[in-house]
Amino acid sequence: MKTSSAPAYHGIIPPIITPLKDRDTLDVAGLENLIEHLLAGGVHGIFALGTTGEAPSLSYRLRREMVERTCKQVAGRVPVLVGITDTSFVESVNLAQHSAEQGAAAVVLSAPYYFPVGQPELTEYVEDLVPELPLPVFLYNMPSHTKVTFELSTVRRAMDLPGVVGMKDSSGNMVYFHQLVRELEHRPDWSLLVGPEELLGESVLLGGHGGVCGGANLCPKLYVALYEAAQKRDVPRVMELHAQVMRISSSIYKVGRHGSAFIKSVKCALSVLGVCDDFLAEPFHRFRDEERLRVGAYLEEFEITRERAWPAAVEV
Amino acid sequence: MKTSSAPAYHGIIPPIITPLKDRDTLDVAGLENLIEHLLAGGVHGIFALGTTGEAPSLSYRLRREMVERTCKQVAGRVPVLVGITDTSFVESVNLAQHSAEQGAAAVVLSAPYYFPVGQPELTEYVEDLVPELPLPVFLYNMPSHTKVTFELSTVRRAMDLPGVVGMKDSSGNMVYFHQLVRELEHRPDWSLLVGPEELLGESVLLGGHGGVCGGANLCPKLYVALYEAAQKRDVPRVMELHAQVMRISSSIYKVGRHGSAFIKSVKCALSVLGVCDDFLAEPFHRFRDEERLRVGAYLEEFEITRERAWPAAVEV
Amino acid sequence: MKTSSAPAYHGIIPPIITPLKDRDTLDVAGLENLIEHLLAGGVHGIFALGTTGEAPSLSYRLRREMVERTCKQVAGRVPVLVGITDTSFVESVNLAQHSAEQGAAAVVLSAPYYFPVGQPELTEYVEDLVPELPLPVFLYNMPSHTKVTFELSTVRRAMDLPGVVGMKDSSGNMVYFHQLVRELEHRPDWSLLVGPEELLGESVLLGGHGGVCGGANLCPKLYVALYEAAQKRDVPRVMELHAQVMRISSSIYKVGRHGSAFIKSVKCALSVLGVCDDFLAEPFHRFRDEERLRVGAYLEEFEITRERAWPAAVEV
Amino acid sequence: MKTSSAPAYHGIIPPIITPLKDRDTLDVAGLENLIEHLLAGGVHGIFALGTTGEAPSLSYRLRREMVERTCKQVAGRVPVLVGITDTSFVESVNLAQHSAEQGAAAVVLSAPYYFPVGQPELTEYVEDLVPELPLPVFLYNMPSHTKVTFELSTVRRAMDLPGVVGMKDSSGNMVYFHQLVRELEHRPDWSLLVGPEELLGESVLLGGHGGVCGGANLCPKLYVALYEAAQKRDVPRVMELHAQVMRISSSIYKVGRHGSAFIKSVKCALSVLGVCDDFLAEPFHRFRDEERLRVGAYLEEFEITRERAWPAAVEV
Repeated sequence: MKTSSAPAYHGIIPPIITPLKDRDTLDVAGLENLIEHLLAGGVHGIFALGTTGEAPSLSYRLRREMVERTCKQVAGRVPVLVGITDTSFVESVNLAQHSAEQGAAAVVLSAPYYFPVGQPELTEYVEDLVPELPLPVFLYNMPSHTKVTFELSTVRRAMDLPGVVGMKDSSGNMVYFHQLVRELEHRPDWSLLVGPEELLGESVLLGGHGGVCGGANLCPKLYVALYEAAQKRDVPRVMELHAQVMRISSSIYKVGRHGSAFIKSVKCALSVLGVCDDFLAEPFHRFRDEERLRVGAYLEEFEITRERAWPAAVEV
Repeated sequence: MKTSSAPAYHGIIPPIITPLKDRDTLDVAGLENLIEHLLAGGVHGIFALGTTGEAPSLSYRLRREMVERTCKQVAGRVPVLVGITDTSFVESVNLAQHSAEQGAAAVVLSAPYYFPVGQPELTEYVEDLVPELPLPVFLYNMPSHTKVTFELSTVRRAMDLPGVVGMKDSSGNMVYFHQLVRELEHRPDWSLLVGPEELLGESVLLGGHGGVCGGANLCPKLYVALYEAAQKRDVPRVMELHAQVMRISSSIYKVGRHGSAFIKSVKCALSVLGVCDDFLAEPFHRFRDEERLRVGAYLEEFEITRERAWPAAVEV
Repeated sequence: MKTSSAPAYHGIIPPIITPLKDRDTLDVAGLENLIEHLLAGGVHGIFALGTTGEAPSLSYRLRREMVERTCKQVAGRVPVLVGITDTSFVESVNLAQHSAEQGAAAVVLSAPYYFPVGQPELTEYVEDLVPELPLPVFLYNMPSHTKVTFELSTVRRAMDLPGVVGMKDSSGNMVYFHQLVRELEHRPDWSLLVGPEELLGESVLLGGHGGVCGGANLCPKLYVALYEAAQKRDVPRVMELHAQVMRISSSIYKVGRHGSAFIKSVKCALSVLGVCDDFLAEPFHRFRDEERLRVGAYLEEFEITRERAWPAAVEV
Repeated sequence: MKTSSAPAYHGIIPPIITPLKDRDTLDVAGLENLIEHLLAGGVHGIFALGTTGEAPSLSYRLRREMVERTCKQVAGRVPVLVGITDTSFVESVNLAQHSAEQGAAAVVLSAPYYFPVGQPELTEYVEDLVPELPLPVFLYNMPSHTKVTFELSTVRRAMDLPGVVGMKDSSGNMVYFHQLVRELEHRPDWSLLVGPEELLGESVLLGGHGGVCGGANLCPKLYVALYEAAQKRDVPRVMELHAQVMRISSSIYKVGRHGSAFIKSVKCALSVLGVCDDFLAEPFHRFRDEERLRVGAYLEEFEITRERAWPAAVEV
């Protein structure tokens, strides 16, 4: 049976949004605010340039600046992970090299996402790329965006590579997640993190090590508390906090439509709270006034403030 | 917060397989064996003519016989639910009428599955059909087979209809399931059951009422014990039993390929244990000797016998 | 090189709609009108109980009546084909038997459509079923509704079975269609028909034998003329008639939304022209007044009348 | 009715493969050979950095070199089009700027391909990006790789933008293509090209202006001849040449599996003919000896040589 002792990477590692002033200008002050907001909330790490960070939409120049500024502001207080998923092998290596130079702790790698690849191709790709990377590697399962799932046999081979330290699963498929947990029996040093925050409670209760929850940009303490309650197997507390997560998920994230609604609403909420700008890189655009008013109304209803970073319905 | 008091339909309600002697002949003795096997295992109800029961593959004559024989053998010891999902409205009504006459307690209804339907069409369909049915109705979300999900707004409207008493969700999407749990705040009398047995533990821990688990055909006691442990919020016990569920799921159900592997392996295992025949209706065929030997080897490894109906690795 | 000599089944074989008075009552007079409308339009056969005929939505009693009435009214003037696609092998055989007794010429068979099947299962299914059928068999490729494509290797094996005489391809995938045409080199007796009427021109120009075009319910002469022009390789005439097909397709069929728009609009147009009733079996419903007015306006704009059965923009 | 007068961009515009020596080194001599091979074959333009050119897999440095070398070698003999599709708006603009500086004639733009976008987002994206581009723009419909189709209403709005001169449709959906042809009535200056070479014949017969055919890398004369025959409405010749296209498509491109089979086999065949190297950028790898022998055997069977660039079965 799986025990609760955690591997090196565990807990809440938010995929930070990339605060922007415009299409190719980082909102540096906003980024610094955001990082302090997260660290004050007790997060266990920071994941830059993920999906929530709009990484594929940014210029390479901006991606490099984001890595540099993030590492500098975090200053070793928690580990920084950097997403290097790319359609180009060479650009992935370049960004990993830059991340190592700036002091990042690990990189996060999904499948190349333009060409649909088969499992043998995906396996070979990971086996070719990992040895070229100067930092430990998290695999990142994200089939809705990359068109391919890391099948179990591929995960097994990939995780036997020196340097692969864990996996982030954003598939939303808990049957698959439980299959991954079974693999931990043979590799208790691996770290297994879940993507969707709505699944954080159950995944930690049943053997996972934490979550890369986008909503933690807004309310870091809520997700940290939920993680800790699940770690302690305090089911009533898990239910209480999970209900808050679902309340946010069923309201604020539903203000927009299309796949972009989540990122738009998190950026919008952070802007309403005064943390950072809400500019989005194309192909997306910030919410208009009407949606912004609805996001603001939800924040007020839930009594989420920048200071508390937490809905008022439950006590910390 | 959701409390653990259970609505009328709760616990483990196995979707029983339909034991066949050949394409159009029920294995009556096998069916009687199977029902006694399940009742001895402590199940809370029986669901006939579901997906696991191969309902769409059977002739209408055989479906009616199956309902009759099942109701007669169960004889009121637990409620019998009957699947009436059909592409033809008229045939759904006919089968529901027959089920009522034979003493079934409720019917289970998914979307018609040939024509892809939009949500307004699905809503209208349910609103037209439910009033014509003589028994309480469970909705059944099964997008992998029906091509359509019951979206939340459709569920809300459908569940306001008199006669709709609950929902079985076989989507495997736990984010969606948690959204359904939120709806229970307003309707604590509804019953919310999960399909995939790999999700039974977490769904009951976080507010669901039980499971329609195909694997319960084979090891009913295991699923009943897991349900009860989750009801009691006994997380260590849930993890122990859930690990057994995953062990079966990752071995026996993987002996075959394609979507049919699950039904084939359950029928095969029941045949190896001497409960009933393993004939499958077209488009499927029973396992050949090679696969049958592998299923038998797993049963032996796990020490699953007809008497115990339980893997030996954990105590009841 | 493929010559233009046609196999037994060729030309325009409309998938007739099933005129209904209500959910379980055939509009017999409407059916007789419709059949005469089609035969007057010069069609080469009639295909009853296809997708356009809403077959899966009808009770079995009604399906049998539809076969009986259609065969009786056609009275041997053209061959009648009957769709027997079903999730239940036994019901497919039953309906084929009934069709043979009523004088149908052939049956049309797609994959069973509830359970997703793999190619080996599909091959075995066809190999098991075809020998039990009393009439020649058309395969029917309809992946949007059955979830499975007849892959080329499966087609090759299936078409080697005695009794299989052709294929109707409704995939809309012309690359696949051209691959099928290549198979005709070895089997010049097979008949290869295309489903979507928007592809009729090119498929006949490049080696196909005709079309099972739903729009031929409304304007049979238009499709017959297009077929004949393509047979004669009269490209300017093909372009002219094809443009009319596209005009109808881009207007009348777009009055509704969802997958059901096509059937609804054809039934509605026939009702406006006075041919038959426009009742649809669940899960669909006839157009409301607003949509009906739009359909009527298009018929007027195109000067499509019951007598001419043809848009006025081109001469017959 | 559509006449055959062609807009500025028409005929065969091959998406050239990118000859590589290794992951980040252009095979410059191979590229020069290939361009001369294509121009000797009579192509009407060259499209660099498309899907067949593996653009998303290349480093940005290499993409820029590819544009520079291609423009230099072509030296104005035919127009050069450059693919600028990217997940990053800024990088698309950068590459378009570079292309203009190197003398390219136009750029080709599909949807950003990491985030799934809705139609309003896609429309806005195109409306934002096109005005920033220094060259005429072709839209590129490629839903299998970008996850989104340019719906008709989006095409209409996009093609009203100054600077948008045409569309390349690689959807393989000929119903959609015919709908696009209808739009040409209002914009006879637009250019409509088809992607899949198996659809070249019919698309030009029925109103299209040419093809961006990957197979033209290997046998440019074949596709040019097919285009010309279709332009002349010479159906017997179209059938003859189309049959050769299907013969290649059904053999050489089927040597590999997965979506990558096409690019691998074209590169391999060009290497066997001595035109250029067959290295592929990750996530793909060149064929191994076994597959290479099979490709060579097909080339021999069809008597395709570098000089003739044409299967011997038909005369030029």
